[in-house]
Amino acid sequence: MAYPFATRVQSITSSAVRDLLSMIQTGDVISFAGGLPDEELFPLKELELAYHKAFRSGGKSLQYGPTEGDNDLRLLIQERLQDKGIPASHDKILVTTGSQQAIDLVAKVFLSPGDTVLIENPSYLAALQAFNMYEANIIAVQSDSYGMIPEELEEKIITYRPKFIYVVPTFSNPQGKVWSKERREALVNLAMKHDLLIVEDDPYSELRFTEEEPIPLAAIDPSGKQVIYTSTFSKTVAPGVRIGWLTGPKEVVRKIALAKQSTDLHTSSIDQRALCYFLQDFSMQQHLHRLREQYKQRLDVMQTFLMKSDPNLFQWVEPKGGMFLWVTINRSIDTADLLKVAVEEGVAFVPGAPFFSGQPQKNTLRLNYTHSSPEVIELGMSRFMNAIDKVLASRVYER
Amino acid sequence: MAYPFATRVQSITSSAVRDLLSMIQTGDVISFAGGLPDEELFPLKELELAYHKAFRSGGKSLQYGPTEGDNDLRLLIQERLQDKGIPASHDKILVTTGSQQAIDLVAKVFLSPGDTVLIENPSYLAALQAFNMYEANIIAVQSDSYGMIPEELEEKIITYRPKFIYVVPTFSNPQGKVWSKERREALVNLAMKHDLLIVEDDPYSELRFTEEEPIPLAAIDPSGKQVIYTSTFSKTVAPGVRIGWLTGPKEVVRKIALAKQSTDLHTSSIDQRALCYFLQDFSMQQHLHRLREQYKQRLDVMQTFLMKSDPNLFQWVEPKGGMFLWVTINRSIDTADLLKVAVEEGVAFVPGAPFFSGQPQKNTLRLNYTHSSPEVIELGMSRFMNAIDKVLASRVYER
Repeated sequence: MAYPFATRVQSITSSAVRDLLSMIQTGDVISFAGGLPDEELFPLKELELAYHKAFRSGGKSLQYGPTEGDNDLRLLIQERLQDKGIPASHDKILVTTGSQQAIDLVAKVFLSPGDTVLIENPSYLAALQAFNMYEANIIAVQSDSYGMIPEELEEKIITYRPKFIYVVPTFSNPQGKVWSKERREALVNLAMKHDLLIVEDDPYSELRFTEEEPIPLAAIDPSGKQVIYTSTFSKTVAPGVRIGWLTGPKEVVRKIALAKQSTDLHTSSIDQRALCYFLQDFSMQQHLHRLREQYKQRLDVMQTFLMKSDPNLFQWVEPKGGMFLWVTINRSIDTADLLKVAVEEGVAFVPGAPFFSGQPQKNTLRLNYTHSSPEVIELGMSRFMNAIDKVLASRVYER
Repeated sequence: MAYPFATRVQSITSSAVRDLLSMIQTGDVISFAGGLPDEELFPLKELELAYHKAFRSGGKSLQYGPTEGDNDLRLLIQERLQDKGIPASHDKILVTTGSQQAIDLVAKVFLSPGDTVLIENPSYLAALQAFNMYEANIIAVQSDSYGMIPEELEEKIITYRPKFIYVVPTFSNPQGKVWSKERREALVNLAMKHDLLIVEDDPYSELRFTEEEPIPLAAIDPSGKQVIYTSTFSKTVAPGVRIGWLTGPKEVVRKIALAKQSTDLHTSSIDQRALCYFLQDFSMQQHLHRLREQYKQRLDVMQTFLMKSDPNLFQWVEPKGGMFLWVTINRSIDTADLLKVAVEEGVAFVPGAPFFSGQPQKNTLRLNYTHSSPEVIELGMSRFMNAIDKVLASRVYER
């Protein structure tokens, strides 16, 4: 039987990143591919106590709950957002199943087939997949290391009248880049001038390695009307709990909540309740401090390897936070070819090409430094260097 | 700012059932409205032990996991399905965030705007909402107490060439009805003849009050190619855990898994892991036995009240399982008006009208008998009878 799939899924295929992930789970390959935090650093004991408390609070923690989310959790998220300068009240916060669901729901609520979304280039893969599922017209805006180029952004706003602009301004995936304050302000101003929505995806900002805290777009917008802001506990607490959230203009959040209602009714009650107790009873600051220290150390180990090599071979911008090191190889090398050799050597990464919209830079790659211990990173990086040497010495490179 | 919502959500509003639920959570109203199991009957102690074990198994239970679901859980679901005669292997099972997500994902993968879905009339409200979000053309097929009328079904198959036929054949919501074996076979045969998919939504079948176990459509289909089957642990274990699943033809399940990937990556890892231990370590049969006994007793209390009244006033078919009693009032009474009086009396139910596609039967209503204890049901039903008496004696009825 030929199944009559909707046009939106006729061309979808699995993401390269996730296929890699599943490949790597078997065998002795060290993976710098996924965007995984290190499970050794999960606050396991504290979470267990929080779940214990949720169970002791009775059956209500396991009952159906409101689509918008556990009210106490929304209040706790409100507090965290206000600390970041985002004036979100709890009734404009929607709890989601990870921030991936927030992205999907925004797309569901705004995108009809053919509608345009403006994105950075390169950009977060799974957001592009979500937009593609609603048959969006995805247009990349040229960016440099400070963020989108305002002139080109305005040109494309005028040309395409996008439904929204999707950005990861702080420690972006895949580039680990931070937008400058000027570029942030320019984006918000353009959104106001052209009466446009910005979707600010901010999963990584808590994982910063410097004192300086980049100001969220949602904290810049004086009207509170231009920005939908989404974040998650996946990178800070644990991804398996699948708790993210979004906030934005009241009318928009209400509509998204209605969309969530028919999508999955609500996010796990027990996970939400336990997360409340976790946030109430334990010091998130202390936990974050530990994560930042550990992840910075791992980044340093990784960078040391790149620095030891031929100084003209690699090019990268040191990330000030987040989970990824974005590397450009100064040779006409296709990192998809490099990956095959690397996996033979026992190490994996993500080739850069899939993150690009339009013409990809095939000599780029993304390395994750948060999942493996410093010792494993050392071993993995020496394998990576072996793979580079092999490819550079081989016909693959010369072709 | 006027937000440029997609056409699919421009007309959506909140579901009557959920608005009621939120209204009722404040105040002293006894609710027979929601489709809630009783949290007093949740296996709280056993679940707590299962979560404890999941935490002791280490950080992996809180890490990102495969979109398809926890492999052990899929094997346990496979076992349960095979016990029901459904030849599903674990690699054709997708774990979802409740069966609501299964319905949404099926819609996402099959429905382009204008595509037709055939449904029973009345039908499960939140499924209709999910289909509406993909701008489907929803066509009701006339049903009697045995299921859809095969002649009309075939006529509408030919006229509309639907993408699929959505049914709840066992203890349906809202009617608590069971399709006869003949009608089940007729449906599967028509699906085979016309090369069509059936979506069999089966959340309630474990809550049966008789020895007789209705055979799932997925167990009738000899080809294994016509039926997407979905069920959930929401009614049997606890809804707040949000674990459902679907199974169907391999190609279809693979496509739906890809859609889930961009929707929320995967369902809570910790909830899945804990559910594995729950299913492995405790007797689900024993737990179900207790639920069936308790819910049957509550149904009996409710029916006793209806039977005590004027024998010509109410009409209903005794449910053989599930959570709902569907009542027709033999008067030209609009149950939406009745509800207002009932809430003043301190009891709530769901008027039947929203469950209908097209012309509603306004003299119908749905009573849930699983959420309240027998004592509370007694109190609530006497309030309900007071409301009926008031309305029958008032101008509301005479209009």
